[in-house]
Amino acid sequence: MKARVYVFLKSTVLDPQGQAVRNALAGLGHTGVADVRQGKVFDIMIEPGTDVESIAREVLTNPVVEEYRIEYPE
Amino acid sequence: MKARVYVFLKSTVLDPQGQAVRNALAGLGHTGVADVRQGKVFDIMIEPGTDVESIAREVLTNPVVEEYRIEYPE
Repeated sequence: MKARVYVFLKSTVLDPQGQAVRNALAGLGHTGVADVRQGKVFDIMIEPGTDVESIAREVLTNPVVEEYRIEYPE
Repeated sequence: MKARVYVFLKSTVLDPQGQAVRNALAGLGHTGVADVRQGKVFDIMIEPGTDVESIAREVLTNPVVEEYRIEYPE
């Protein structure tokens, strides 16, 4: 069974990595890009019953500046 | 308009970052986790007509070891 956890910086937190990507794209002529935010994604193969919620909350995310979302693909 | 680009290491390429997460989870008692692969995700705000495909292929991905997927949420 597969779970997917997305971790993004909170929208109120500055994302310098995303800004760097945006500026690089602008320099390369991709002027149609208004904003970029970069996050992490974890594809986790789990046994049924595994507590993905607590893995995401306690291990994968820094709750001060980040937020997470869990999806179960397919 | 929003586009989302996922960048993962190809499945044939070793993912040491994901392995480190997996080992950390095992050490913390999350034994139900068989495998973890970590990737990057870019949320890109674009003007309609922007060539996201070429942005993903030429800028965000290293084609030697990575592969990408594009989604248009909502």
